[in-house]
Amino acid sequence: MITRLASEARATQLAQLHGWQAVAGRDAIQRHFVFADFNEAFGFMTRVAIKAQEMDHHPQWFNVYNRVEITLSTHEADGLTGRDIELARFIDSIAPALLSV
Amino acid sequence: MITRLASEARATQLAQLHGWQAVAGRDAIQRHFVFADFNEAFGFMTRVAIKAQEMDHHPQWFNVYNRVEITLSTHEADGLTGRDIELARFIDSIAPALLSV
Repeated sequence: MITRLASEARATQLAQLHGWQAVAGRDAIQRHFVFADFNEAFGFMTRVAIKAQEMDHHPQWFNVYNRVEITLSTHEADGLTGRDIELARFIDSIAPALLSV
Repeated sequence: MITRLASEARATQLAQLHGWQAVAGRDAIQRHFVFADFNEAFGFMTRVAIKAQEMDHHPQWFNVYNRVEITLSTHEADGLTGRDIELARFIDSIAPALLSV
């Protein structure tokens, strides 16, 4: 059973992420990305998909052309857990920082 | 310059698609899919992505785990065009009919 992040761990871990915002009305985080084109955007999504499958922890995401919006939360815990932090860190590690909006 | 479908062609062509619904408030169509798992859902998305890139006509889409929601419209025409019909037909051709919801 995976449990939601306690408030102290949460603050520390969220502070280490880049560009993630709290989602209104639910315990989740979201980050928006803009790429040069669809090829770059979907290539990025494919890298995230492979990682997500490896973790058995999947994002909610939206894409249109060069934009990708990713929302992370843990269904079983009804909120943010260490799995979301781990996936967010991976996403940050492959995201071109200057293209994040 | 690509132009929106005229009403007669629109009715005929939309009637040949499977499971697509009009989107409220804009000239677009949407279809929802449910797959067995994320692997199937993202594999389907990858096939659509490759076709979209070939057509230079991209979907708006949302995914979480085994669910995919696709919205089609043509930005340059601010509405439905023959490109949307062509992409929808391709999607229909690779979508497992029984898994559409």
